[in-house]
Amino acid sequence: MRILIDAMGGDHAPEAIVKGAIDAAAEFGVQIVLVGRGEAILKSLTALGLDTLPKGVEVANADDVVTMEDDPATVLRARPDSSMVVGLRLLAEGGGDAFISAGSTGALLSAATLVVKRVKGIRRAAMCPEIPTKTGSTLLIDCGANAECTPEFLVQFALMGSLYARKVQGKAAPKVGLLNIGSEPGKGTPLQKETYALLTKAAELGLLHFTGNVEARDVPLGAVDVVVADGFSGNVLLKTIEGTASLMTSMVKEIFLQNALTKLAALICRKGVLAMKNKMDYREVGGTMLLGISKPVVKAHGSSDARAIRSAVRQAIEAVNGGMTEELHSQAAAVSDLLKRQ
Amino acid sequence: MRILIDAMGGDHAPEAIVKGAIDAAAEFGVQIVLVGRGEAILKSLTALGLDTLPKGVEVANADDVVTMEDDPATVLRARPDSSMVVGLRLLAEGGGDAFISAGSTGALLSAATLVVKRVKGIRRAAMCPEIPTKTGSTLLIDCGANAECTPEFLVQFALMGSLYARKVQGKAAPKVGLLNIGSEPGKGTPLQKETYALLTKAAELGLLHFTGNVEARDVPLGAVDVVVADGFSGNVLLKTIEGTASLMTSMVKEIFLQNALTKLAALICRKGVLAMKNKMDYREVGGTMLLGISKPVVKAHGSSDARAIRSAVRQAIEAVNGGMTEELHSQAAAVSDLLKRQ
Repeated sequence: MRILIDAMGGDHAPEAIVKGAIDAAAEFGVQIVLVGRGEAILKSLTALGLDTLPKGVEVANADDVVTMEDDPATVLRARPDSSMVVGLRLLAEGGGDAFISAGSTGALLSAATLVVKRVKGIRRAAMCPEIPTKTGSTLLIDCGANAECTPEFLVQFALMGSLYARKVQGKAAPKVGLLNIGSEPGKGTPLQKETYALLTKAAELGLLHFTGNVEARDVPLGAVDVVVADGFSGNVLLKTIEGTASLMTSMVKEIFLQNALTKLAALICRKGVLAMKNKMDYREVGGTMLLGISKPVVKAHGSSDARAIRSAVRQAIEAVNGGMTEELHSQAAAVSDLLKRQ
Repeated sequence: MRILIDAMGGDHAPEAIVKGAIDAAAEFGVQIVLVGRGEAILKSLTALGLDTLPKGVEVANADDVVTMEDDPATVLRARPDSSMVVGLRLLAEGGGDAFISAGSTGALLSAATLVVKRVKGIRRAAMCPEIPTKTGSTLLIDCGANAECTPEFLVQFALMGSLYARKVQGKAAPKVGLLNIGSEPGKGTPLQKETYALLTKAAELGLLHFTGNVEARDVPLGAVDVVVADGFSGNVLLKTIEGTASLMTSMVKEIFLQNALTKLAALICRKGVLAMKNKMDYREVGGTMLLGISKPVVKAHGSSDARAIRSAVRQAIEAVNGGMTEELHSQAAAVSDLLKRQ
């Protein structure tokens, strides 16, 4: 398996990306292709105390870099030689099995859609992060790529999330919930009401296991395996978990810093607190899959360190092994039929 | 000051409501009017070991009760003798200065709008809870009353939230942020883009202190004093904080339950952990103001215990003392002018 990585994307590129890639190549035994400025990558190697590329790691040169200021919609034309676009081209042409970037989310989504293309019949690609819950983790689809959605988009998101949970996460009959402001079927805006009806029909056809509306409060408690949302409210859900976890982690820290005794308590609980912090931390989970693209593309967090990149590589490997693209293709057709009958 | 309380609303009515009301009358020195079935209220008194109404507490009889199954839109016609409707009538007619209910949110909003009426010029009443943050608390307006909103609604929410922060919370120039999926002005759906432009103009006119978009991640960190949102995404924000806090509180509990040493650590940190739990707990904050109604109406949480009711009474007292209705009236006119000039 060959995993392509954008060496130049993210706040800590290229150093953290190069280190994470090398770690992943050693740990997972896959071939890694670092896409980016050869000189900068070699400099990072030197900084890591290496004078040559380790076994399993190679470089594909790309002279340009996508910046956070670039307009996502025009990045393909404006930056054809960027590490992101070159990497996606390699993916499309068979030069690798998956692509990972910690660069601009909007640019990655737009360029992946144009270069690698969506699965036939899928109207929008969507971001699908795993969020930490009491019982493990839950997939959230969408979380910001598509601020405005139609019921058709949401039904396709549900389908893609359910497939990912089955094929990649190995869940037998993942529970799919529609993010809403109440559990009753009539709740929400017309978007939720229409989507609820369509998901009910999709479930009747055996396409997925729809368990109804899910309130935001029940998501971190692990009520469902897949949360379906428009990109706006999905983004609010995701970032509120992040902010609340950050707030509470700092509160726990303060509790332990009160006096000599609480500092002793901190030592006793060190392992548990670290485990909690890691569970609530996106870096342990890896990146976010762009579902709906015809080959696996992973968006790593912009502030990814080497550990986050290593996790994103593991996720890319699982996505390749899951091979959900073929089934998504046939299910997309079934959903189109369902919508046509409306 | 006379505070009217719906004795029959909420999961633990009337016992918890009666106890909270008695506690509040003693603690805050205000007159409390318990509205509801006289017999049930007296039975609660007996259960509390009292054989008569304490000083400062009286009963206004209402024979019926609004249930969670009642259609909010028709509750005024269907349940004219309910404790909720009778209490709101007393408020409208000057029989009290504020009304508190832990009953159905939708019914309270609908009945308060019809019986007590909105402030002239205000298009929608909105729920405005205080959410816990690193720096204290932040007002969230709206959090679910209005799932679908227009830019005009959101600008009025911003105005009401800002006024409440000034008049009731005593903040000099509260920072108002628009909940969005990015900090840049062009982010979000057309609703956010148009609202951003209007809020910028309102700020230029000196009506409020608009600090731009705020991402959900920064809300628990205390980035702004007032978060403006449509009811759908505001509800997602509020309930995600609740769910994440619940998840992390149970994780902290587990850390302390590992072994004899961690149990010792739990004893050492008991006070701090309790303080954290209380900070993240809605019951410490009290209820949620319905802003835009011409007199103070407080929605207490459905699962309110006596402590929550006591907090809601304190909040109602502060709202009465703040006297924001008059200023809201004149500012609503200024916003109408602003919108007309568009």
